[in-house]
Amino acid sequence: MIASIKKVALVGGTHGGELTGIFLVKKFQQSPHLIQRHGFETIAFISNLKAVEVGTRYIDIDLNRAFNPQDLQNPQLTNYEQSLAKKIAHKIEEEKIDLIIDLHSTTSNMGLTVILHGDNPDLLKMAGYLTQTNSKVKILTHNLNKQTSYLLSSAEFGITIEVGAVANGVLDAKLFQETENLVYAILDYLEADKKGQPLSVPPSFNYYSAIGTVDYPRNDRGEITAMIHPKLQFQDYQPLNPGNPIFITFEGEEIFYQGNETVYPVFINEAAYYEKGTAMCLTVISDQ
Amino acid sequence: MIASIKKVALVGGTHGGELTGIFLVKKFQQSPHLIQRHGFETIAFISNLKAVEVGTRYIDIDLNRAFNPQDLQNPQLTNYEQSLAKKIAHKIEEEKIDLIIDLHSTTSNMGLTVILHGDNPDLLKMAGYLTQTNSKVKILTHNLNKQTSYLLSSAEFGITIEVGAVANGVLDAKLFQETENLVYAILDYLEADKKGQPLSVPPSFNYYSAIGTVDYPRNDRGEITAMIHPKLQFQDYQPLNPGNPIFITFEGEEIFYQGNETVYPVFINEAAYYEKGTAMCLTVISDQ
Repeated sequence: MIASIKKVALVGGTHGGELTGIFLVKKFQQSPHLIQRHGFETIAFISNLKAVEVGTRYIDIDLNRAFNPQDLQNPQLTNYEQSLAKKIAHKIEEEKIDLIIDLHSTTSNMGLTVILHGDNPDLLKMAGYLTQTNSKVKILTHNLNKQTSYLLSSAEFGITIEVGAVANGVLDAKLFQETENLVYAILDYLEADKKGQPLSVPPSFNYYSAIGTVDYPRNDRGEITAMIHPKLQFQDYQPLNPGNPIFITFEGEEIFYQGNETVYPVFINEAAYYEKGTAMCLTVISDQ
Repeated sequence: MIASIKKVALVGGTHGGELTGIFLVKKFQQSPHLIQRHGFETIAFISNLKAVEVGTRYIDIDLNRAFNPQDLQNPQLTNYEQSLAKKIAHKIEEEKIDLIIDLHSTTSNMGLTVILHGDNPDLLKMAGYLTQTNSKVKILTHNLNKQTSYLLSSAEFGITIEVGAVANGVLDAKLFQETENLVYAILDYLEADKKGQPLSVPPSFNYYSAIGTVDYPRNDRGEITAMIHPKLQFQDYQPLNPGNPIFITFEGEEIFYQGNETVYPVFINEAAYYEKGTAMCLTVISDQ
């Protein structure tokens, strides 16, 4: 698969308040030599300029849920992000982009998470390589929906980078530099592979597979009635065992995890997911 | 002064994304007995309902900069927050509210900051009492503009509570509970004073006085060219000495503090202040 990659797009600003990717893309646009490697071309662009300007996640709808193939074909979908998704999908196709690396940030404590959206063994191997470059790198595979509506689904291959914890509208210098180095590590890995001098991948490594989501407790008006429990806050990728505290109500009553097996929650208390009915995603751990 | 206070307003949602105050006010509205004390009345309300609904700081302009007395008198100022400010100022006057406690949160690591906007010795004494209730309580006095445009300036007395670090759109359970306890401590202090049984205030305590702000380095298009230095990130209320690193450019070049004396920065990397030209506020420490 990697041999077939001829053009890579580094995308920032798919959500307007996630500054890490936005400022990285600006840097790459000003100094394109930083992302040039032998054997393939790399471009960088901001996807939702208007949301970036306003400083909000989106104008009308979440751009990263607007790339469903049926929606892209539907001429009746004409709000700002729906129209933008069509333009971006067209650009990706016209410019023959094979691999999209979509740079996101999160209010969850997810370190440097590399999200793979399928079960491509070559991408998993590359992600394994990345875990060696920084101990904060985690691999998350996400196969919940085969037909995805993410921006990166408009190219053949896609990786989401989720870095955090960082608030929307904030640049954290350390995370910025670590994300930059992660991007270079990906490009270096691809280049080495192209040259026939592949970089070494650890013989075994862990990765996390999403198995579902958990919503906040809510009343019959849909309002949340509890918060993430302090013992779970910022504990992304740590084991959550049956009976462990998971939420706490506004009155201070603890709510415990009722599952039957140990899981590893991620996206714990992500700001943007309150409206999506997601307090966290649950994952299981696997060995590669 | 405290003897004259007959009605207190606890305000949340002056900025729509600051969930701590918003959910506290909702709790107080559902269980008003929690904030009832002998000797004075307390009400709780959300100030910018529309911004809360949308989940943004404001709709048209920052509500907490819309209470300048001249602006409140100006019939030509009619955007959403300008109109809202007039309504709220009218309500405060009509309901004879003496003290406003405005509940904010911040992406800066400011713990439980009690901001005093004048040099009222009784409020300072009360704040001194609060420092005993939780080691995260800090006192910040802010006299930079005598004529303020904050919401709380529409009552005779006002206190801003700033809690953090917490991202906009996120509820941090521990901070929620600590802020709730801080509110109760304020009400308890006022009640004890009314009863003629004042609670004990430490003989001496520190407070921080704002002396100015520092902007991010910017290019001639006004774009920021550097980030808060990793060694300064989350170091609110810690000493910043001449020559200490303060910013780091996107290229990794360090920028050092050029002042002549030790200062104590606060509001370091507050998301909402990028647009206000404020990377941090500088304070000096004083003894009471």
